[in-house]
Amino acid sequence: MKKVIDPWGSGLLEDYEKIIKDFGLEVFNPKLFPKPNRIMRRGVVFAGRDMEIISDAIKKKKRFYVLSGIMPSYEKIHFGTKMVVENIKYFQDNGAETYILVADLEAASTRGISLEKARKIALDFHIPAYVALGLDVKKTNFYFQSENKEVMNNAYEFAKKITLNEFKAIYGSADPGKIMGAVTQVADILYPQFKERMPGIIPVGVDQDPHIRLTRDVVKRVKEKKFFLPSSVYHKYTPSLDGSLKMSKSKPESCIELPEDIENVKKKIMRALSGGRDTLKEHRKLGAIIEKDMVFELMKQHLVEDDRELNKIYKAYKSGKMTSGELKKIACSKMEKFMNNLNKGIEKARKQISKLKFVKFK
Amino acid sequence: MKKVIDPWGSGLLEDYEKIIKDFGLEVFNPKLFPKPNRIMRRGVVFAGRDMEIISDAIKKKKRFYVLSGIMPSYEKIHFGTKMVVENIKYFQDNGAETYILVADLEAASTRGISLEKARKIALDFHIPAYVALGLDVKKTNFYFQSENKEVMNNAYEFAKKITLNEFKAIYGSADPGKIMGAVTQVADILYPQFKERMPGIIPVGVDQDPHIRLTRDVVKRVKEKKFFLPSSVYHKYTPSLDGSLKMSKSKPESCIELPEDIENVKKKIMRALSGGRDTLKEHRKLGAIIEKDMVFELMKQHLVEDDRELNKIYKAYKSGKMTSGELKKIACSKMEKFMNNLNKGIEKARKQISKLKFVKFK
Repeated sequence: MKKVIDPWGSGLLEDYEKIIKDFGLEVFNPKLFPKPNRIMRRGVVFAGRDMEIISDAIKKKKRFYVLSGIMPSYEKIHFGTKMVVENIKYFQDNGAETYILVADLEAASTRGISLEKARKIALDFHIPAYVALGLDVKKTNFYFQSENKEVMNNAYEFAKKITLNEFKAIYGSADPGKIMGAVTQVADILYPQFKERMPGIIPVGVDQDPHIRLTRDVVKRVKEKKFFLPSSVYHKYTPSLDGSLKMSKSKPESCIELPEDIENVKKKIMRALSGGRDTLKEHRKLGAIIEKDMVFELMKQHLVEDDRELNKIYKAYKSGKMTSGELKKIACSKMEKFMNNLNKGIEKARKQISKLKFVKFK
Repeated sequence: MKKVIDPWGSGLLEDYEKIIKDFGLEVFNPKLFPKPNRIMRRGVVFAGRDMEIISDAIKKKKRFYVLSGIMPSYEKIHFGTKMVVENIKYFQDNGAETYILVADLEAASTRGISLEKARKIALDFHIPAYVALGLDVKKTNFYFQSENKEVMNNAYEFAKKITLNEFKAIYGSADPGKIMGAVTQVADILYPQFKERMPGIIPVGVDQDPHIRLTRDVVKRVKEKKFFLPSSVYHKYTPSLDGSLKMSKSKPESCIELPEDIENVKKKIMRALSGGRDTLKEHRKLGAIIEKDMVFELMKQHLVEDDRELNKIYKAYKSGKMTSGELKKIACSKMEKFMNNLNKGIEKARKQISKLKFVKFK
């Protein structure tokens, strides 16, 4: 198998090699896509399914779509969501019809959040945050699942195509709410194709791959309509600041949410797992262990846009010229700028909410 | 436990005693309801849940509703459906708001029938058949599940209230389509209460009790809205002509569908399990074994409206004055009249389809 490309190293690489093998994914090749974005260039986007058809559509200017869902459970997102939005933006900028749906039905069936509450959270927070992160509102079609009769109707038809055991095999477990949420996602993923058959790409974190697999299984079984199998790209998790695979709210000291009070965040960064050596002398001599450094990983994934700048930091840190403390201070300063921009962006986007293009339903 | 009242006997009584015990039902008491209909008077309606609240609503002219669903799988109904319609008509005549929904989503999710096909079958056959059997179109609110956003939306919220194990305990098995069908039925059953809290009665065959139980379980758990627990009444099966509990399409010689070619039906009746004795001499001496006679049961359940007439036949047959052949001929003649009326009624009702009162959705 082709190895995952990660030009600036990550200690968690083996985990992703295993995921690729277990899930039967293709390794992501940034050369498939013109002017790949930061996370694509840097091996953070590491895998996908049926990516060539999307590459082809971009290059030949054929019609295709990018789609993603908002889970409006509370007024925060995490770095994974930020990466999803960055990938949506990439495909949007490269000609994709863009669909963003609010998964209010899934919020109800899996988390017991009322449709009214889900709607409010999405309009007050998630949609503005997505816009702040770069989504072009003029080019984006929004809808709420609960208003999309076609999506709901198709969810029922798709439910007939799968068995409980298949569902359990894909998701690990099954309960009524989860099943309804999942088959509705299948209908969402295919929704742009109800009117017009075209390829579509779904950018997700690897933990969302079950939805992609379920959709692809259903597409293969639907005889009445011919859909393109959905394509997908997967980004790595932003690792927990303590070095484990994934940030988790259950360990708040190692997890940064967006947005979050910047002074809090700085404290967390200063305490993060570092690749610096035990003594300054040793550090100058041996240099940092980059693969162990969670702050460098954060900068690589999120905080440093320019590759040359990242490369400079990488060399200085790896050679021991830059200390772990210095690296963390740079990260704090960049994080502060990012968080300020995000907050301002959300404020600004809230005022634009009336300009959103919602899909019109009969 | 109070015994099931069955004034004209049935060999299958023990089965229903067991059902009442196992499902925790109340024995049906025809005295609860003014001028009970034929199947209520004769112990064919044999059990229910929370019937007093409906009795009270009728007597005090309080608002309540009766609701039932059409499963549009193919263009036939069976005698069980006929009894459902007769009970709907009874409650409609006694002041109930009447709702008839077409379970097109359930047909899609459990049987793979497309929404278009389900719609066509319901409009061409089931609704006209229901009207032919006595439903007052002017007083009935019809809707298709697939058009009822509120029902679909609530189905997702209700799904969160139940676990897979509970579902399996109630239904015996679970698959994605069945689960979606069932939670949507829960939403249907409560739909008239979305705008106005009021008691409602659902007339069903005992095999439909799982839906009633699931709905009652959900109602107890929904904190956000206060619903009345749905009431229900249960009718017995029309037994198979060979004497087993229930007519089944898998044994076509012992099953009568509605409508069906009358010459075929007559042949089936003539061959049905009889309570007549082996010789005429013995029959005259001992009389018929009514509990074994499937044709008498058919007449009791469906073909003889007048109690005095039924009583005369009962006495003549039981005493041996009337032979099994004579009984069957009477049954054939009455069946022919019924089937003719049904066919004419369906034809006539098809022309009224434009007058149906469909629920208007935004």
